[in-house]
Amino acid sequence: MVTINDMVSYCKRRGLVFPSSEIYGGISGFYDYGPIGVEIVNNIKNEWWNSIVRNNENVVGIYGTVIGNPKIWEASGHVANFVDFLVECKKCKQKFRADHLIEDVLKLSTEGMKAKEIEDVIKKNNIKCPSCKGSFGNVTEFNLMFKTNVGPSGQEFAYLRPETAQTIFADFKSVLDTSRLKLPFGIAQIGKAFRNEISPRNFLFRLREFEQMEMEFFVHPEKKDECDKFDLIKDVKVNAYTAEAQEKKGKTVSTTIAELVKNKTIKSKWHAFWMGYRYNWFLMLGIKPENLRLRQHVKTELSHYATDTWDIEYNYEFGWKELEGIADRTDFDLKQHAKFSGQDLSYFNEESKERVVPHVAAEPSVGVDRAFLTFIIDAYAEEEVKGEKRIVLKLNPKLAPYKAAVFPLVNKEGMDVKAREVYESLRKQFATFYDGSGSIGRRYRRMDEIGCPATITIDGQTMEDNTVTVRDRDSLKQVRVKIIELEAKLRRFLDGEKIEKVGTLIK
Amino acid sequence: MVTINDMVSYCKRRGLVFPSSEIYGGISGFYDYGPIGVEIVNNIKNEWWNSIVRNNENVVGIYGTVIGNPKIWEASGHVANFVDFLVECKKCKQKFRADHLIEDVLKLSTEGMKAKEIEDVIKKNNIKCPSCKGSFGNVTEFNLMFKTNVGPSGQEFAYLRPETAQTIFADFKSVLDTSRLKLPFGIAQIGKAFRNEISPRNFLFRLREFEQMEMEFFVHPEKKDECDKFDLIKDVKVNAYTAEAQEKKGKTVSTTIAELVKNKTIKSKWHAFWMGYRYNWFLMLGIKPENLRLRQHVKTELSHYATDTWDIEYNYEFGWKELEGIADRTDFDLKQHAKFSGQDLSYFNEESKERVVPHVAAEPSVGVDRAFLTFIIDAYAEEEVKGEKRIVLKLNPKLAPYKAAVFPLVNKEGMDVKAREVYESLRKQFATFYDGSGSIGRRYRRMDEIGCPATITIDGQTMEDNTVTVRDRDSLKQVRVKIIELEAKLRRFLDGEKIEKVGTLIK
Repeated sequence: MVTINDMVSYCKRRGLVFPSSEIYGGISGFYDYGPIGVEIVNNIKNEWWNSIVRNNENVVGIYGTVIGNPKIWEASGHVANFVDFLVECKKCKQKFRADHLIEDVLKLSTEGMKAKEIEDVIKKNNIKCPSCKGSFGNVTEFNLMFKTNVGPSGQEFAYLRPETAQTIFADFKSVLDTSRLKLPFGIAQIGKAFRNEISPRNFLFRLREFEQMEMEFFVHPEKKDECDKFDLIKDVKVNAYTAEAQEKKGKTVSTTIAELVKNKTIKSKWHAFWMGYRYNWFLMLGIKPENLRLRQHVKTELSHYATDTWDIEYNYEFGWKELEGIADRTDFDLKQHAKFSGQDLSYFNEESKERVVPHVAAEPSVGVDRAFLTFIIDAYAEEEVKGEKRIVLKLNPKLAPYKAAVFPLVNKEGMDVKAREVYESLRKQFATFYDGSGSIGRRYRRMDEIGCPATITIDGQTMEDNTVTVRDRDSLKQVRVKIIELEAKLRRFLDGEKIEKVGTLIK
Repeated sequence: MVTINDMVSYCKRRGLVFPSSEIYGGISGFYDYGPIGVEIVNNIKNEWWNSIVRNNENVVGIYGTVIGNPKIWEASGHVANFVDFLVECKKCKQKFRADHLIEDVLKLSTEGMKAKEIEDVIKKNNIKCPSCKGSFGNVTEFNLMFKTNVGPSGQEFAYLRPETAQTIFADFKSVLDTSRLKLPFGIAQIGKAFRNEISPRNFLFRLREFEQMEMEFFVHPEKKDECDKFDLIKDVKVNAYTAEAQEKKGKTVSTTIAELVKNKTIKSKWHAFWMGYRYNWFLMLGIKPENLRLRQHVKTELSHYATDTWDIEYNYEFGWKELEGIADRTDFDLKQHAKFSGQDLSYFNEESKERVVPHVAAEPSVGVDRAFLTFIIDAYAEEEVKGEKRIVLKLNPKLAPYKAAVFPLVNKEGMDVKAREVYESLRKQFATFYDGSGSIGRRYRRMDEIGCPATITIDGQTMEDNTVTVRDRDSLKQVRVKIIELEAKLRRFLDGEKIEKVGTLIK
């Protein structure tokens, strides 16, 4: 199994990700994307935006600020409830997340417990400081929102948003007033969010600064089953781990979205639609089916705003954990913001002349950084090829930082000139890399390691017949293709066609 | 002339931009992009990234965090110097930017003045509070960086970065160590930055939260003239307003980049290259040449880190102001960070075995929000067509939120079915909008107003001969095109071909 430590060192070595401000010793919970990483990040965001906004006529986007009016966070409940439980070692004064401590030592979930109960568990089980074996003091609440002063007075403050969702609710009226959206419709956003995590951990899995891709899908409260697109996703195969199975020590079962709706495990068709749509997105982008499951929240872990939530979970080194959450948030948020702002946040149906506060039938919410980590964990492989180890990132071509690389076999006999010609024409179409130095084997390995799906070599034969070799990163098969047909054939290969279908296989 | 107020109300009415958290009364200096605005923003960022990173083999990207180790800002000089001058009305206690006050009342620049000098100017000229006519107190320094606490201790703090450039310098070593870049090379970044402006103003022009697109181009200090790409931009025509012209009350002259280098007004070819490249980017994306100029900083306004800076300025309602700055930052930043971090930030040349601290020969730096504002101001027009006023946004198709819109003339006789077919096939290729309601004239006007370059109507004739009308937003000309050729012809039109060249003109 690929470990998080493997990923940390791989990402650093190949310029995907490194600690932020590393020359100053870094800063815990903050990572920067390097030259290869940023291209993958951009591809993930583009694929999400295309899938959610461009591909759904009734979904629009917004792009809101990190800092907003602080009343948002009173209305949302974050000022009162967005807390973790903190406990300090009396001896070394180090602070820990109390729930993580209990989870690590007792393998026990503290979901739903209050500060006092958590404190009792620590005392009864005599849990000691993992650093110095000292005793712990009281358990206290710690709000995870970053706070800052705004304006010259020093009196006004604001929070850095801990989630992007609330920006969508706060902008609901502005979007509704300036567009001609009719229910059901979605509002989507990609943007940064910040949480002052007590102990950030697992690399990109839990960060203090991260980016979210979220969509709120608003539906008439009585029409949550009127989903005209259900057929598109009904046959998506999922590994489902229902709340009932968890409570009765049952198992994850392989099933379909249609089945889960039919036996009423998923309660509304629109909720089911977005689950299937999102689960399928990960599959289409290459995540191995056996590493994904759809887990329903059990009652004790449901958030105060949600009636039903399912997580798309991934099988990480540290267990099955949330990759994406898809909650039915009801009308909780719009009602809260209407109450706190005094504004009317209902939707007016011109035909029925009816005013209604829509329900968020589904909120698919995923972290860019967590998605990035998951895609590379899933694509990363160490293989033995002809007695030598190779590291290969079997990324879907849509996510690959470069779609193709062009090499001259040697930098003479006109091969380098020809190679640059091929490169210059390809890079107008695809992100393409040129590499003219080092042994050809080494150049291949470098490209394999950053997930470049196709490597094109200009050799002696090219100078005679204007064909090149195209090597498939995954199968390692090579074919010869005419330069004049290269762009079109490469496009087919990148769209999923087998390498042996786009050229003459070299035996 | 298009006013800022025109833009505020236009942007709000059409869902481009609205105040952040508006239902709570907003928050000064923060704006959110709505459904149309976010698409334009994404297009601007994509065009920049393609032009800077994809189109330049020796430029790579990074994506760094907003919050970094606070030592960055000691090294950069921001902790000590990133201040504005604040003055408080003794009567109403309102705080103002002292330099803006002097500029507004006396039309005088305070560039280069210290707090005491500014205070003297206010006192001598007896400047009063614009709100209540009260007298002013002392002038004080106000640091514009937002500060926040990080971690559970309450002891550690950090700043929200006030610019993205420093992230590039702080990551210089990590990028160099993990890539095989050879001088000269660039590191580019798009990301958010935050400045606690005392008085944010002019809509998107001066915000507290904004986004930057920056690139640091590193060059061997003795090779700032060895620019192999100079020919690509040497003939770019610019309106140049040199420091000398400003000092001697001279004028802006129409010239070329090559001329400015030849007469040594621009001191290095690499600096000149990026000026021409960036100036041309705005021209290629449709900014009217008469609204742009390249203005050299005079000595008193040069930043402490720069030996020469030129701004690409735009002719706004409130005067010629910076749209993009292009500074020669020398080795100032790398040396500062080397000193403060104790790390070696030099570049090792494997061939000459020489260690050298590169110079930033050019740092093109532009705000996404300011670019957005400028593109829409420049594209916005109110015209009279057949006695009726129309508002049209003549955006370059590359920046347009939708590339095409599809309308059935009426929702009967199969036109709506056919229109949806055309829409479904087009939207796989381009961002396409479908509109089936309202009069055809009204539908055209809606699309004109958000800058959609091509509107396609399915009418009675379509049902007979499978042709559609394509209407050009700018010339208002209409042509008939066969559906089977529509995608290819639309592509040519969007790439700049005249509408009459892609179909049969309707007289």
